[in-house]
Amino acid sequence: MTLRVEFVTDLGARVSLEVQNENELLEVQRRYGRLGWYSGDVPPGGFQFPLDNEPDFDWALLGGRKFKNDEGEDCVWCRGAVYKRRELAAVDTKKLRLPAAVKYSRGARPGDPDYLREKSDGEIEYVTLAIFRGGRRNEAYATRTARPESLPAGN
Amino acid sequence: MTLRVEFVTDLGARVSLEVQNENELLEVQRRYGRLGWYSGDVPPGGFQFPLDNEPDFDWALLGGRKFKNDEGEDCVWCRGAVYKRRELAAVDTKKLRLPAAVKYSRGARPGDPDYLREKSDGEIEYVTLAIFRGGRRNEAYATRTARPESLPAGN
Amino acid sequence: MTLRVEFVTDLGARVSLEVQNENELLEVQRRYGRLGWYSGDVPPGGFQFPLDNEPDFDWALLGGRKFKNDEGEDCVWCRGAVYKRRELAAVDTKKLRLPAAVKYSRGARPGDPDYLREKSDGEIEYVTLAIFRGGRRNEAYATRTARPESLPAGN
Amino acid sequence: MTLRVEFVTDLGARVSLEVQNENELLEVQRRYGRLGWYSGDVPPGGFQFPLDNEPDFDWALLGGRKFKNDEGEDCVWCRGAVYKRRELAAVDTKKLRLPAAVKYSRGARPGDPDYLREKSDGEIEYVTLAIFRGGRRNEAYATRTARPESLPAGN
Amino acid sequence: MTLRVEFVTDLGARVSLEVQNENELLEVQRRYGRLGWYSGDVPPGGFQFPLDNEPDFDWALLGGRKFKNDEGEDCVWCRGAVYKRRELAAVDTKKLRLPAAVKYSRGARPGDPDYLREKSDGEIEYVTLAIFRGGRRNEAYATRTARPESLPAGN
Repeated sequence: MTLRVEFVTDLGARVSLEVQNENELLEVQRRYGRLGWYSGDVPPGGFQFPLDNEPDFDWALLGGRKFKNDEGEDCVWCRGAVYKRRELAAVDTKKLRLPAAVKYSRGARPGDPDYLREKSDGEIEYVTLAIFRGGRRNEAYATRTARPESLPAGN
Repeated sequence: MTLRVEFVTDLGARVSLEVQNENELLEVQRRYGRLGWYSGDVPPGGFQFPLDNEPDFDWALLGGRKFKNDEGEDCVWCRGAVYKRRELAAVDTKKLRLPAAVKYSRGARPGDPDYLREKSDGEIEYVTLAIFRGGRRNEAYATRTARPESLPAGN
Repeated sequence: MTLRVEFVTDLGARVSLEVQNENELLEVQRRYGRLGWYSGDVPPGGFQFPLDNEPDFDWALLGGRKFKNDEGEDCVWCRGAVYKRRELAAVDTKKLRLPAAVKYSRGARPGDPDYLREKSDGEIEYVTLAIFRGGRRNEAYATRTARPESLPAGN
Repeated sequence: MTLRVEFVTDLGARVSLEVQNENELLEVQRRYGRLGWYSGDVPPGGFQFPLDNEPDFDWALLGGRKFKNDEGEDCVWCRGAVYKRRELAAVDTKKLRLPAAVKYSRGARPGDPDYLREKSDGEIEYVTLAIFRGGRRNEAYATRTARPESLPAGN
Repeated sequence: MTLRVEFVTDLGARVSLEVQNENELLEVQRRYGRLGWYSGDVPPGGFQFPLDNEPDFDWALLGGRKFKNDEGEDCVWCRGAVYKRRELAAVDTKKLRLPAAVKYSRGARPGDPDYLREKSDGEIEYVTLAIFRGGRRNEAYATRTARPESLPAGN
């Protein structure tokens, strides 16, 4: 079943292309993701992925890439912004019970739409790119190691 | 008549694909819905479906799935949020007359756009995914039991 | 000249399909309109149609249908809301001159976007689906009587 | 190089169609523009065209048409609203230097989005459809006189 | 791999066309960019490009063009607005460390959406088209010199 995927390119252009199936879709997202292309929007509150996917998550799938900043902190550059890695301890109170999680977030900027802004305890607003919590690992999200990249036919 | 349906994938990507007719459209919505893919937006006030469709409604059609939470309550996970099942009694006053209904809703979150927010009697804002009230049952919405899934040709 | 038309389905899905020409476009809008599918948005202030089209306007073209409510009033259900029929007398003052019109409108709801809200003399906000005023009747808008529906080829 | 152009029809529907090249694109915009179809949005502050294009500008390209109102004023009906023709004298002050221009604008209405609203000296808000100022005449914008309309092939 | 790119034309129309690969995509963006066509939106805070790309950046890729204003200042006309070139010195304080940059920006206008507005030290709001800072030069962004334009096949 042919799928057509819509990207925003590094020049902000709206471009779509055809792939032959869901696997090729992921490969094409990785390939163009490494050029900084991305498809779709960050959902309100950020993407939600399983905790076990965090260590080797392939950020090219979202058009991003992981790096260490000058202070040696793990960060992700994605869609024109830098997000820092933060570990959140489990919560177990009468009102709220949440397992441990890892979050990639940043301080809010003037251009951030309201639907992406979240308030922490104080008045500081921040924006989440993704949160890894609970769930079951999905192999499709993992960074491909040395395996030759099975590029879409005709390239 | 070939139809092209646009999905948002579990990675937030914008992807469209072709199906041969309206039946195959529903099958493809079910199939990709189970991966968490969905098509289109939740309308203001939530989807409106017939009451008789509630017991066996196939939430994969909306990219969601039903489950029981730790307290044994019926819930639906859909598009990154959890909605609780609530039964609403019929209303019969001089100003308003409404038949009984079942509603799937949740408390509003910072990222929710204004057009989805509704106020209950107090100041609490909530968001409705779907409300089942009146109308005539539509078999197309029902969860398929054991019938082998008639996957689209070529898969 | 093949045309591709984009619909929102009764399940909120984004679906497009091809038709062979403008006549077939209207037939397809009628056919899927009867399933509650619709294409595009209601413009600010509602659709503007000729007054002579009001008596037999085919609301399926907008994904709606006409009915009488319990009080015997003419109403239109369209895109999840009910609009009431109201007759507006002609206006002839120094500041404003407007011919008589028929309007289909409803009270505003929490989910209505600002651009659809209008204020009457008091503080009540309302939303207009369509207003029929002046202009020249367009036969293409009329409800088809008994003529066998010339369905698009291949169905 | 085939181009696909997206229109909003007189019934608000989202329809796209293919043309063979840029000339045919303009012809199709004229042809469907006369039915009130239009493609894309009015940009913030209105369209900007060369002053020499104003006298014979083909408003069908924007889905509009020119007419004289009861007071004999030149107006343009476009996308459900009426815009009046206004001549703006050249401006030559220390702070601002602008050549003479012709503007088509109207008073703002409740449904107008913020990005289209402009404030004149007082508190009155208005919306501009197009402003003709400076620049070099573009023949492609001119109303076709008696030349037989070279309709797209197959019609 | 065929790519389909969506443009907004000089008449605001939504038009898409097919190209055979990423190189042809850039050529087509240049070619139609010179007519004032552009694809996609300016991201919040403006485009981010490498500093070494600034001297010969091909603004046609964004639908714009460079010129000197009456005061001899370097400016870029793009998507209906004029942006001025400003050089920003490097910043090296305890709180913030940023390399030198070149910015193309303008004062905010009534029609500018909130997500594009930024506040400088005072109360003046401005909008950034692009900022050139750090990074590694990308040859694909450079203005083509005398090389015959390799137009897409069939033109």
